[in-house]
Amino acid sequence: MNQDQQYMQLAIQMAQTTTGQTTPNPHVGAVVVKDGEVLGMGAHLKAGGPHAEVHALQMAGDRAEGATIYVTLEPCSHYGKTPPCAELIVKSGIQRVVVATLDPNPQVAGRGVRLIQEAGIDVEVGVLEKQADALNQVFYHWIANKTPYVTLKTAMSLDGKIATTTGESQWITGTEAREDVHHYRHTHDGILVGVNTVIHDQPKLTTRLPHGGKNPVRIVLDTHLRTPIDTPLIQSPEAPTWIVTGREVEQDQIDHFQQYDHVEVVKLSKSTISIDEVLRVLGEKGITSLFVEGGAQVNDAFVRARAVNQVIQYIAPKLIGGKTAPTPITGEGIAKLNEAISLQIEEVIQLGQDIKIIAKPAEQE
Amino acid sequence: MNQDQQYMQLAIQMAQTTTGQTTPNPHVGAVVVKDGEVLGMGAHLKAGGPHAEVHALQMAGDRAEGATIYVTLEPCSHYGKTPPCAELIVKSGIQRVVVATLDPNPQVAGRGVRLIQEAGIDVEVGVLEKQADALNQVFYHWIANKTPYVTLKTAMSLDGKIATTTGESQWITGTEAREDVHHYRHTHDGILVGVNTVIHDQPKLTTRLPHGGKNPVRIVLDTHLRTPIDTPLIQSPEAPTWIVTGREVEQDQIDHFQQYDHVEVVKLSKSTISIDEVLRVLGEKGITSLFVEGGAQVNDAFVRARAVNQVIQYIAPKLIGGKTAPTPITGEGIAKLNEAISLQIEEVIQLGQDIKIIAKPAEQE
Repeated sequence: MNQDQQYMQLAIQMAQTTTGQTTPNPHVGAVVVKDGEVLGMGAHLKAGGPHAEVHALQMAGDRAEGATIYVTLEPCSHYGKTPPCAELIVKSGIQRVVVATLDPNPQVAGRGVRLIQEAGIDVEVGVLEKQADALNQVFYHWIANKTPYVTLKTAMSLDGKIATTTGESQWITGTEAREDVHHYRHTHDGILVGVNTVIHDQPKLTTRLPHGGKNPVRIVLDTHLRTPIDTPLIQSPEAPTWIVTGREVEQDQIDHFQQYDHVEVVKLSKSTISIDEVLRVLGEKGITSLFVEGGAQVNDAFVRARAVNQVIQYIAPKLIGGKTAPTPITGEGIAKLNEAISLQIEEVIQLGQDIKIIAKPAEQE
Repeated sequence: MNQDQQYMQLAIQMAQTTTGQTTPNPHVGAVVVKDGEVLGMGAHLKAGGPHAEVHALQMAGDRAEGATIYVTLEPCSHYGKTPPCAELIVKSGIQRVVVATLDPNPQVAGRGVRLIQEAGIDVEVGVLEKQADALNQVFYHWIANKTPYVTLKTAMSLDGKIATTTGESQWITGTEAREDVHHYRHTHDGILVGVNTVIHDQPKLTTRLPHGGKNPVRIVLDTHLRTPIDTPLIQSPEAPTWIVTGREVEQDQIDHFQQYDHVEVVKLSKSTISIDEVLRVLGEKGITSLFVEGGAQVNDAFVRARAVNQVIQYIAPKLIGGKTAPTPITGEGIAKLNEAISLQIEEVIQLGQDIKIIAKPAEQE
């Protein structure tokens, strides 16, 4: 790894730590270096807050004159919530700019680089590009599709069961796997379940990590608005709850929820819920990443809609058996084997006694 | 790794290559070394054939005088199909004996070592003991329990399905995983399925490897002797077929199979089949290792009988879904989660697109 790559790696590492907190903005890190001395570093921490380059240049101050800045993403060229970073870089006296990857929006890609080059500054693009792209796959997906990046999470025994024949399911996986799930909740904008899960399991769907965490927006698919009032999603206002319903739900049904400020009922255009429309609506509402926690029929709907970008499967080394024992994805299913969703295993990780498999649709590669 | 360990490792490696071909004998390797020069090496290749020590000492000839012999298992002290190796070692002029592990049979353990020590020869025991024991876990199990070591093999999609809702199952896993299964058939004494699998899938249950392989005894659990005559297990005599039935099967039913020399009907003592009795009978008939390939109800019977020593689970990165899509272990199942079979993951291996998980009951550790 050469020196450029080492500084870029530091910028990427800083950006990685902000997973889940910059929505709907990407994760970006920046480092300012002169003569082998690090003068400034920073990451974009929160939408509306300063960009990574601003933090790093502020730390460097006047010493930025003649220095190199490493940025994981092309500096912006437009006036948004903050002035364009490309201009700031030009003004700061920076002599060389190293960029990992260009802006994902094809309409502006290259513009920031050009603005800097026109000011006579050296620009190099593509250092650790792959790693920098991986940092923002969720953001890129949302920019490209206007829908959230969907992660389907399930947990099952080694023989594919999520509960025994009598419905016992707590706990199939161990504490490490369960804590890992809360980390995903923390890093996702939204968490989604079906109304049956709300009724039967009474979940809170909040993030419970030893050192705290951000709660995702809690989203319930509930065609006929059957979500009970006396359930934690309604009674506990720790995070927004959005109930997605079909067109035919009556206003007086909706009115029951109006006293709860954190609750919003989102009516779709048809009497039944289509996953495509759900994703479109959530994307418009700024949900860039969606964590689908089932139940098994909701999972099936996402699978049949081919709306899964990533699968996180926890497997506990248990054998349960039973013809009627429930499995992670049920519903109608896919009838033809050659139409099944084909994935690629990305990673297999041991988590305590359990293993975690991360897989992505083979087409995405 | 010191020199003793290096030579013992060679002996273990030779013994490993004989997996599946020494039944009902253990896998044993031996190396004869003097002044850093390897003078002889060998492994036990086949029951009834010479033991590892005999091969290695034969190769060394007169040069064994004053040498060291490394043996993965304590040399035998009894007259069996061959004279005792302990005596042969004493006669050969060997000066030092290094043994990995003692005889698993507590009634004779240490006897071979003592016989050699009494002749004034140095003996060291315990070099690479763990690896040497792993070599013969199947044999040790059979010696200790008089029943075969049971490996349960299943293959499923990432969401726990073995077929689609319409029953399509060929092929969920890829070619590498399927070839791996044939390697297991080659190394097992017996392969076991239920009669429903015989009727519906018409399997041959032979070993089909690119460079050949040994066929296991094909065993069918068939309470009422419903195995059809015109099925490959009966029509193709490449391997023995044993049909295990309940007590109430009539002799004239059995007579239908008598013209087939490779077919044997094994009647149990009760009208229904108990897995415990099946294993006892198979153990008596010299089956030291049993590969259970299902179907899902037979698998369930083994799980409920807690008669599984190892699970090989192939997982294909596919999502199939479907409430009625079949899963690897069905039947009655285990109703209480705390009574589920608890395993430990031993290994996770990538096989082409698929992964293979090897797990063993946690109690065995």
